[in-house]
Amino acid sequence: MDVTFALIEAAEARIGRNLNQTPLLSSPHIDALAGRHILVKAENLQKTGSFKARGGWSAVSALSAAERARGVVAFSSGNHAQGVAYAARQHDVSALIVMPKDAPAAKVAGTRALGAEVLFYDRATEDRDAIGHQISQERGLVLIRPYDEPLVIAGQATVGLEIAAQAAELGVEAANVLVPCGGGGLTSGVALALAARAPAMQVRPVEPAGFDDVTRSLVSGKIETNIALSGSICDAILTPSPGEITFPIIKEHCGPGIVVSDDEARAAMAAAFRYLRLVLEPGGAASLAAALYHPDQISGDTTIVLASGGNVDAPLFAKTIMEAADDRP
Amino acid sequence: MDVTFALIEAAEARIGRNLNQTPLLSSPHIDALAGRHILVKAENLQKTGSFKARGGWSAVSALSAAERARGVVAFSSGNHAQGVAYAARQHDVSALIVMPKDAPAAKVAGTRALGAEVLFYDRATEDRDAIGHQISQERGLVLIRPYDEPLVIAGQATVGLEIAAQAAELGVEAANVLVPCGGGGLTSGVALALAARAPAMQVRPVEPAGFDDVTRSLVSGKIETNIALSGSICDAILTPSPGEITFPIIKEHCGPGIVVSDDEARAAMAAAFRYLRLVLEPGGAASLAAALYHPDQISGDTTIVLASGGNVDAPLFAKTIMEAADDRP
Repeated sequence: MDVTFALIEAAEARIGRNLNQTPLLSSPHIDALAGRHILVKAENLQKTGSFKARGGWSAVSALSAAERARGVVAFSSGNHAQGVAYAARQHDVSALIVMPKDAPAAKVAGTRALGAEVLFYDRATEDRDAIGHQISQERGLVLIRPYDEPLVIAGQATVGLEIAAQAAELGVEAANVLVPCGGGGLTSGVALALAARAPAMQVRPVEPAGFDDVTRSLVSGKIETNIALSGSICDAILTPSPGEITFPIIKEHCGPGIVVSDDEARAAMAAAFRYLRLVLEPGGAASLAAALYHPDQISGDTTIVLASGGNVDAPLFAKTIMEAADDRP
Repeated sequence: MDVTFALIEAAEARIGRNLNQTPLLSSPHIDALAGRHILVKAENLQKTGSFKARGGWSAVSALSAAERARGVVAFSSGNHAQGVAYAARQHDVSALIVMPKDAPAAKVAGTRALGAEVLFYDRATEDRDAIGHQISQERGLVLIRPYDEPLVIAGQATVGLEIAAQAAELGVEAANVLVPCGGGGLTSGVALALAARAPAMQVRPVEPAGFDDVTRSLVSGKIETNIALSGSICDAILTPSPGEITFPIIKEHCGPGIVVSDDEARAAMAAAFRYLRLVLEPGGAASLAAALYHPDQISGDTTIVLASGGNVDAPLFAKTIMEAADDRP
């Protein structure tokens, strides 16, 4: 299945009003900090707290009656988990989610509260892909991959459709669009949507230092892999390498990657708390960090920041906003 | 000047795309906690962090050239302050803001960062109304009252226009609309807008315990006054009594008031952090507290919660989300 624009429009139609339409926000203080006009697409306000509800809905709503009766399985650090769990519950489909045992408590609790069964694995020693495939075969469940899956990419692409429409209403046609990037499902989906609806916009993948596989892949022209599997607070976007479906799309449509430090992600979380009144998780704030702390790598008067998620545990959030009060980069 | 629907539509036209369109959000977890479907109108995401930017814009944009040249003065615990300061700066008008010396640091800093001059008074011993009037006369500045001012009420009423349109898109026609209420500018404005555009909706003012002047006024039919001037964490809505312009509107259009405790406001802030990824200040969360902890006082399957502001200092927010992790009412 190719990720065509028709597939994206079909996902948009299936999602309809079942999910939240998220706003494109701005703040005079954020503009002053960034040195240009910043529009924040707040996908942390999506149902389940991240854009992943879109991909989950797109995939589950496309299942046949026989597939729905069997149930679904997904592996995820927590946002795809909740997106799939929510879509499954709303479609009366059972869901089994494979999560790393060090996933944020809020993500585990959120997934369980949505009625999914949770199975843990060890991020450092076990291969979640292999576990997911094995369970899928043994139990006859439909595997919903987190990013290398056309229906999931088409769902995430609906963020791009909304960005194009909302930016046009504000008179914005050309802009860098900064997107936190793990396996590239959101990045590739948004890039495809914007290529069709707002071709003067350019998607820029943003990654945490040490997990810049997409940035390096864009430089070398082939899929590169990270050495470490954990070690950044940006838990949502620590993927070993871009996907086989997502990377060719990213290579065709996206501009150079931008790499941010964990400290910059923390400072961006604090700025979003104070000036946008948004709760962002570290990975979800990576794009804002790029806008605030790497302005020289961005071009244009207006930049669109996709804030991708807000599932963060209270202790980390509390510590982050307290530290940042007098310690900003 | 009467607060007519034409005045509201004119304010809407002047505001145009200068302010944020805020979303109407929902979360499956919030629905489960509340026992009904909850739609949250997130005005904490408005520019300057509260709906007050609407009233400020409405008033400042209506000034004559001569008035703009003289400048404006306002008294406020911090949200009207920032709303007026922002509107003034965008219209190239100088602004002087009279604030209580115990106002949250974030509100003082926000007001100053928007270019306004800040003058402090003592909430317990001084009368901000008198100070505002005196300065207005001495310096020839136009006084923009926080709520008993038709142009300000008309600006706040634009929240109601948005609620009516967004709820209609979701197929919601009848609902209680819970509104945090201080002097009643937002409450009366939203009530007027909904009376015209969504007459099956009923506005319900929400107040903190000990500051339930509007709730008592609705019972007695005349303007009642609070004894205390401070003593609740809901700093944004501690007004001595409903306004002379706002109360007759509230009396005509609004249902009974709902009173929430500070602990309930705190718990609602924590729920908004966790399940809606929104930063709410205590007064801004009072409406969500009413939905979550006083469900018996509300009628209907769907309730609309107006989350009015998110200007809260990091220490209070951090403490609140940490305490609530294992201590909810």
